Amino acid sequence: MDCFKVTILGCGSAKPTLRHAPTAQVVNFRGNLFLVDCGEGVQIGLARNRVPVGKIGHILLSHLHGDHCLGLVGLIASLGLGQRTGEIVIHAHRDAERIFQPLFDFFSPDLSMKVSFQSFDPGRSSVIYEDDSLLIKTIPLCHRVPTAGFLFQEKPRDRHLLAEKCDALGIPFAYFRGIKKGLDWTNPETGEVIPNKELTTDPTPSKSYAFCSDTMYSEKVIPIIKGCDVLYHESTYSNVDTLKAHLRGHSTSVEAATIALKAEVGRLLLGHYSSQFMSNEDEEILLDEARQIFPNTTLSREQMVVEI
Amino acid sequence: MDCFKVTILGCGSAKPTLRHAPTAQVVNFRGNLFLVDCGEGVQIGLARNRVPVGKIGHILLSHLHGDHCLGLVGLIASLGLGQRTGEIVIHAHRDAERIFQPLFDFFSPDLSMKVSFQSFDPGRSSVIYEDDSLLIKTIPLCHRVPTAGFLFQEKPRDRHLLAEKCDALGIPFAYFRGIKKGLDWTNPETGEVIPNKELTTDPTPSKSYAFCSDTMYSEKVIPIIKGCDVLYHESTYSNVDTLKAHLRGHSTSVEAATIALKAEVGRLLLGHYSSQFMSNEDEEILLDEARQIFPNTTLSREQMVVEI
Repeated sequence: MDCFKVTILGCGSAKPTLRHAPTAQVVNFRGNLFLVDCGEGVQIGLARNRVPVGKIGHILLSHLHGDHCLGLVGLIASLGLGQRTGEIVIHAHRDAERIFQPLFDFFSPDLSMKVSFQSFDPGRSSVIYEDDSLLIKTIPLCHRVPTAGFLFQEKPRDRHLLAEKCDALGIPFAYFRGIKKGLDWTNPETGEVIPNKELTTDPTPSKSYAFCSDTMYSEKVIPIIKGCDVLYHESTYSNVDTLKAHLRGHSTSVEAATIALKAEVGRLLLGHYSSQFMSNEDEEILLDEARQIFPNTTLSREQMVVEI
Repeated sequence: MDCFKVTILGCGSAKPTLRHAPTAQVVNFRGNLFLVDCGEGVQIGLARNRVPVGKIGHILLSHLHGDHCLGLVGLIASLGLGQRTGEIVIHAHRDAERIFQPLFDFFSPDLSMKVSFQSFDPGRSSVIYEDDSLLIKTIPLCHRVPTAGFLFQEKPRDRHLLAEKCDALGIPFAYFRGIKKGLDWTNPETGEVIPNKELTTDPTPSKSYAFCSDTMYSEKVIPIIKGCDVLYHESTYSNVDTLKAHLRGHSTSVEAATIALKAEVGRLLLGHYSSQFMSNEDEEILLDEARQIFPNTTLSREQMVVEI
């Protein structure tokens, strides 16, 4: 019921390799699936992780570099072949519709489901999705093309009801919902007001997940992601390649960790590794560097599931 | 030097699965590489088989269904990132340029190599490539969209020189090339004509490989592929699904084997298996059915290398 987890389908950079798929993740929020980026081979990642693709209602594209979106046409085609119904909303830069709609029309002319585009302006933070319990905001990033990350923010949860106390006071069940939302209760017979804090305890803190890829070091993200529980931040290169990272609009492990530290996040996931790292051992240098700044850091890996 | 082999990168059908990649093959003819179809994930197949991608000069697309060409944009992007130079020629239906050129422009605006399109008419057999030793012809196929297979035909080889006999007759070295090509030799001093058949023996038979996918059963291909050494013919379904195969423009194992038999080919490779087959064992039914008609049949598998 309260599931909030991220499955890493791909955490490599530009080129698909035998070790890493290009960027793709699935955020499962209480059974609703959001696909974040859609690199080539995403269908294999979805199959390998037994993701129920029929439950993907939204696809979020951070930017329109091939390694973040070239799996989209095949995925939509396969979902159509699978007689998927309902709607899939693709949230992306406005160019996405111009690029991809003609491909859907050509390769999947008879789709069984509706596919629509909702564009956002990567230059400013805005809410792109909202329901009763979840808010998704864009995070303006600093890359070679317009790029945004995504903040998945669970809405404040209900306060915990002190059920025995409510019963003892004879509060009818019908009032419970309002009390959980923070209302005081007024006894209709005596007029006595019972303050909410006597009827409830604080709610479980709501959780949040921030996805920041691709981006060079940018402190502008800090106020948006401040205090989030888990941050996925790209670290394409190690500290020795700081100049290369800047020139290519990417970050180093040290820079990712510095953002995590300054934003006071709970946990940092590194990803988007350059293909210059030839083994898991090679990539450990990224982890070692980051942990010196932000100890609670993990290297993301394909098939990893992270509970938020 | 005389290498002529096919590496299967993908032999599945529409959907990429954990067992099969979509269609892609590499034909290596004496070190020149031809990529035949280019399904999503082709780069993984190329890497897994350690194919020297820098030697791919031509990409041949049988038709413009996604499972045969959606790996193209990513492949071209990666070759560009790899600072590949020279030219890559994409041979395909004329719509390919309209569909893919805008994607190359968008996703790979600064390619290091030239990429050009050469269109062919899938409705008639024509030569689309020729060099000193190889000819590639299209094979009109019968599918839901315009589709052509490809016949790779080694040109007739040189006759084998009877070197000792030539030496005994005092024939100068400079004449050997012409004699290997079939010329008689005239002794310039005596005027005596030595017939070629006394100076040579028949050449090693030249080899040929035919790729026929996707297609429903069509006897029109027979005169074109007649006697080829190896035929890859799709067999999406087993005999029990003959009607389904026809409705979807595909073939059964029995139909593939019947074509192989009537065309008197040397060996048949089946492929393009429906995702309804869930295991290698499931697919054995295709093999069993085909072998009853054409015994020298093999199921193609990813990573299989077939010497022609």
